[in-house]
Amino acid sequence: MDDLVGNARAGNRRALARLISHVEDATPAGRQALSDIYPATGHAHILGITGAPGAGKSTLTDGLIAQARGDGLEVAVLAVDPTSPFTGGAILGDRVRMQSHIDDHGVYIRSLASRGQLGGISEATPRVIAVLDGAGFDLVIVETVGVGQAEVDIAANADTSVVVVNPGWGDSVQAAKAGLLEIGDVFVVNKADRPNVAEAVNDLRQMLMLGAPSEWEVPVVETVALDGSGLDDLWKAIGDHRDHLTTTGRLSAERNLRAEARLRSAIRAEIESQVATHTDDPAYLLALEAVRGRTMDPWSAALQILGASG
Amino acid sequence: MDDLVGNARAGNRRALARLISHVEDATPAGRQALSDIYPATGHAHILGITGAPGAGKSTLTDGLIAQARGDGLEVAVLAVDPTSPFTGGAILGDRVRMQSHIDDHGVYIRSLASRGQLGGISEATPRVIAVLDGAGFDLVIVETVGVGQAEVDIAANADTSVVVVNPGWGDSVQAAKAGLLEIGDVFVVNKADRPNVAEAVNDLRQMLMLGAPSEWEVPVVETVALDGSGLDDLWKAIGDHRDHLTTTGRLSAERNLRAEARLRSAIRAEIESQVATHTDDPAYLLALEAVRGRTMDPWSAALQILGASG
Repeated sequence: MDDLVGNARAGNRRALARLISHVEDATPAGRQALSDIYPATGHAHILGITGAPGAGKSTLTDGLIAQARGDGLEVAVLAVDPTSPFTGGAILGDRVRMQSHIDDHGVYIRSLASRGQLGGISEATPRVIAVLDGAGFDLVIVETVGVGQAEVDIAANADTSVVVVNPGWGDSVQAAKAGLLEIGDVFVVNKADRPNVAEAVNDLRQMLMLGAPSEWEVPVVETVALDGSGLDDLWKAIGDHRDHLTTTGRLSAERNLRAEARLRSAIRAEIESQVATHTDDPAYLLALEAVRGRTMDPWSAALQILGASG
Repeated sequence: MDDLVGNARAGNRRALARLISHVEDATPAGRQALSDIYPATGHAHILGITGAPGAGKSTLTDGLIAQARGDGLEVAVLAVDPTSPFTGGAILGDRVRMQSHIDDHGVYIRSLASRGQLGGISEATPRVIAVLDGAGFDLVIVETVGVGQAEVDIAANADTSVVVVNPGWGDSVQAAKAGLLEIGDVFVVNKADRPNVAEAVNDLRQMLMLGAPSEWEVPVVETVALDGSGLDDLWKAIGDHRDHLTTTGRLSAERNLRAEARLRSAIRAEIESQVATHTDDPAYLLALEAVRGRTMDPWSAALQILGASG
C-alpha cells in the first residue's frame, strides 16, 4: 500500500483508482493509506456543483474542466450520487459525456454511489476528496445529483459551492427549503437560451438579498453550457471566490470549521459502525422485541445495545 | 425514586411533576424511573394536535378536555414548543387559558420547551408521553406549536393526529410542504365563523384525495373553538379514528413501527451524547489540533479518541 500512495502521487492513475476504492470502503489498508496521504492535503481548491437532475451540471463541469486545463491546472472530478446504490443510468451517461477528456492525463474522473460505505456516502465523500487532494490535483470538482439533505451535506465539503438552476425553476420557496440559498457561493442560471431567464435571475437575486449579510456578494451567472456561453464568467466568478477566501483569511477559518465537523462526524460514524443497529443482529432484534412488548423502554435498550457492542 | 413512580401512579401530582422533570432531563434516577414505569404504558390514547401559531389549538384542546372529562376520562396535556428554550409568551398565555381545569384532579397540564435535553425535545417528548401514559391517564394530548419538521416528528408519537387550520390558510402547497397532509388523521377548520370556510374545507378535501388511498377516510371538521361549535363532531371523529385503529389492528401495527423508530432514535441520541462528551476531553482537543494541522486524518483521530476512552 505504501507503493499505492507513492504511485498515485506520482501520477499513476491505476494506483490512484485502487487507492480510492480502498479508502472508500475503509479497508484497513485504506485507512492506513488515508493516514499516510492526509498531510499532503490542503493544496487543492475543492469546488462543489449541486443542482436538480437535468439542470446541466455535467455539461458545466465539462466546460469547467476545459477552463481549468487552459490555466494549466490538473483536475479531478468526483461525481457523487447519494440516491443510487449503483453508478448507472443518467450519471453513467454524464460520465460518458465527460470522456472527451479521457486522453488528457491532467484530468481524472471518478463516480461514487451509495453502497454501504462506513458512515454512508456522506462520510466516504470527504475521504475520497482527501485522497484526490493529497494525490496532487489542483482542482477537485465534486458534483452531486439532486438537491436533498444528503447533497447539501456533501456540498459542505467544498471551498466554493456552485448551485445550478434553470429558468422557470425559480420557485424561491423551493430553493430556500432545499437549503440551497445558504450553501451557494456562486449561482448559475443554466440554459440561458430559454424563456424566463431574467425572471429566474431576479428571483435568485431577491432571495439572496434576504439572507444574512456577508462580505462576499454571491454572483448569479448566466450560462448556456451546451455552446459554452458564460463559462468564462463562471470560471472567473469561481476564481474571484477563491481569491476572496484567501485574502480575507476565510479559507483557513472555514477549513478549520470543516475539520472539526469532519472529526465529529467521523466519531459518530465509528460509533455507529460499532453499534448493532442491523436488523439481522441478534442483540438488536432481542431489544426490539422487548421494546415492542414494553418489557424494556427504548432508552434503556439503546444503552444496553451500545454497552454490549462497546 | 421508587416512591416517586408509585406516588405518581397513585395520583400524586407533585410526585408526577418531579418524575417528569427527571425523565425529561434523563438523569440517572429519571432513566431508572422510566424503565420502571414503561411496562405500564400502552393504555392511553395519544392524541396529537398540530397547527400554525394562532390557529386555535389551545382553545380546541380546552374543549377536548371538557369532552373527555364528560366521558369520565383522565386527561394529560403536554404542550411542546420546539422553537423556544423557555416556556413563556404565547404558550404561557395558552397554559393560563387552560387553567379553567386547574381544580379538576382528572386533568394534568405540562409544558415542555427546548432546553438541551438528551437527544433534544424530539427525543424528550416520547419519554414524557411514556410517563403520562404509565401514570394511568386515559388520554394524553400532545399539542405542538408551529408546523416545521420538529413538530411533524413530535406529532409522529400520536395514535391520532389532529391538524388545525384556519379559513384562508388553505394554501395547498404550503400544507403539503409542511408534511401535514401525511400526518393528519383528522383535519379541523377552526374559526368557522370567518369567511372562506367552504373554500378551505374544499381545498383540504381535494388535497387529501390526492394522497395515497387508505382504509381511513380523513374527516374535515368545522369548529368555532371559542363558542364550542363543532367540538362534539371533532370528539366523535377522534373516537371514530381510535375505533378504526383498534378494529383493523392498525393500532398495534403502528405502535410496533413507532417502537422500532423510537429504539433507533434512542440509539442515535445516545451516540450523539457520547460524541458530545468527547468534545471537552483533552484527547479530543489534541486530536482536533492534529486534524486541523493535517498531521492526522479525522478518521484515524476518531478511532484514537474512541480507543482512548472506550
